[in-house]
Amino acid sequence: MRNTPQGILLGDLWKRPGLSPRDRSVITVAVLIARNQPVEMPYHFNLALDNGVTPAELSEIITHLAFYSGWANATGAVAVAKQVFSARGIGADQLPEASATPLPLDEAADAERAKGVEQTVGAVSQGVVEYTNGVLFKDLWLRPGLAPRDRSLITVTSLISSGQVGQITYHFNRAMNAGLTKDQASEMLAHLTFYAGWPNVFSAVPVVKDVFEKRPS
Amino acid sequence: MRNTPQGILLGDLWKRPGLSPRDRSVITVAVLIARNQPVEMPYHFNLALDNGVTPAELSEIITHLAFYSGWANATGAVAVAKQVFSARGIGADQLPEASATPLPLDEAADAERAKGVEQTVGAVSQGVVEYTNGVLFKDLWLRPGLAPRDRSLITVTSLISSGQVGQITYHFNRAMNAGLTKDQASEMLAHLTFYAGWPNVFSAVPVVKDVFEKRPS
Amino acid sequence: MRNTPQGILLGDLWKRPGLSPRDRSVITVAVLIARNQPVEMPYHFNLALDNGVTPAELSEIITHLAFYSGWANATGAVAVAKQVFSARGIGADQLPEASATPLPLDEAADAERAKGVEQTVGAVSQGVVEYTNGVLFKDLWLRPGLAPRDRSLITVTSLISSGQVGQITYHFNRAMNAGLTKDQASEMLAHLTFYAGWPNVFSAVPVVKDVFEKRPS
Repeated sequence: MRNTPQGILLGDLWKRPGLSPRDRSVITVAVLIARNQPVEMPYHFNLALDNGVTPAELSEIITHLAFYSGWANATGAVAVAKQVFSARGIGADQLPEASATPLPLDEAADAERAKGVEQTVGAVSQGVVEYTNGVLFKDLWLRPGLAPRDRSLITVTSLISSGQVGQITYHFNRAMNAGLTKDQASEMLAHLTFYAGWPNVFSAVPVVKDVFEKRPS
Repeated sequence: MRNTPQGILLGDLWKRPGLSPRDRSVITVAVLIARNQPVEMPYHFNLALDNGVTPAELSEIITHLAFYSGWANATGAVAVAKQVFSARGIGADQLPEASATPLPLDEAADAERAKGVEQTVGAVSQGVVEYTNGVLFKDLWLRPGLAPRDRSLITVTSLISSGQVGQITYHFNRAMNAGLTKDQASEMLAHLTFYAGWPNVFSAVPVVKDVFEKRPS
Repeated sequence: MRNTPQGILLGDLWKRPGLSPRDRSVITVAVLIARNQPVEMPYHFNLALDNGVTPAELSEIITHLAFYSGWANATGAVAVAKQVFSARGIGADQLPEASATPLPLDEAADAERAKGVEQTVGAVSQGVVEYTNGVLFKDLWLRPGLAPRDRSLITVTSLISSGQVGQITYHFNRAMNAGLTKDQASEMLAHLTFYAGWPNVFSAVPVVKDVFEKRPS
């Protein structure tokens, strides 16, 4: 068993100390949603709940990735989550409230971010600018149902596992600002070799290296 | 409802004036085919037919994207389309003819295009050159069942929603030559944030910006 | 029929002399696994077995691509393969042994490869380095159930059909070192236009051109 592929994952990778089982579950669930892989979702949604991800957090992960990996990816994940929740007797009272109080906004940091978006996107699409500054960063990212570090972890995971290298730098820095340590980031990449495939990790490595080098130590 | 993710799409995005409902349906259907997302297809194939896409055009969109997003993507879409057509009583007489008269070819423009393909691909694969100049641009693009602007719209959508940034420039210019306005292109990107996911749009933005800047105004 | 899309594939593409039917099947199966397209798998798994791919080789192709296209892609393919094997009366005795004697390792070439990995990845993730040098190149690539040329063929196919352009150079050279000729590589690209979609091939072409130019003739 130890030498079979499956044995490597369950008996070795998931037991390495560099990341908590909850973090590994958050990452793995994000890969499956971002890559639209419903077959493995029932197993990993259940494992995530066993590893301390709450039903509300799992629901919020799906909502977040609707925006980062495209609407239809979330539809498929919602169908699986409903079945998993039902089988575990999880009711609507354990899911996120529709009108929860948003997290406080860091106005200065957000103004800086919005300035960058205007510079990059402004001349191309004011619609994209508006939705990015409103729905995405004022609504989605301030929803209280998921810690900012978790939101960043699944965003970075989605980018790496979809080969969206050009968008990694901003979100990797944001993840580290939210508490992801360098050692955890390194181990996240090791975890992703198996779940996102080797090439996606190797394409991300030079970008992550650059992020590491440019951050104040 | 207005503040839920679904409310944003149905009550806000689809009602924005920058693109017709038919264009939004053409784009959305193309995302689902290009990203191989059958779960959402029944809803959006029906919505497309309601929004003025004819059955023959929907069939032609699937055929076109077989070439641009890979054969097996079309297979899945065909299965869904058959069910949708059957439920609406749409028969084979409303689908494209096998041997329709092709659109006229702009010989000068096509010679220029073929010259570029030979320069880029010639030393690597004459098979690719032959299929590109024959099956793709002499057969597929000249099929009369879909307006050239629609073909370009779904091609560009497929490229953006699959992260194929390197192929956007040529097809974005071709789309604008076929009648896609700058304002429509901007709104297309806003539409795609939700359906293709934010990162794919942000990766496309610099390329589109460059296209906008270099086109004669 | 000849002029329909399907007719082009069966009556023309697959009969071209540049690649054997077995190579075409190996490539096509790899596309479907790498792009997670189970709908077409039953047909092409059966065609692959008809074209001389053994059940043990097909099983090994799935295992290999678990690492190169992500774990969950393999899960879906395994389910289809079980059904195909069962329908053809193929038993476990025809599948790869769990503890087969590994192929001999070219120590010098592997040391060079490992040196490159350490330089690229070492400062970012020692976990990735360890798994790459161990599980990937000492275990997976030395499994005897699939010829090295076949492993390279499916690896390159997976990279091209997933748009992972940055990882093509190393593996394309490795494939040619393992016996893939320049003519076969050219024809592989022609085959992939249909199965991976035109844009993925066009994005790969400049990289392949560079590989061709830099290899000693």
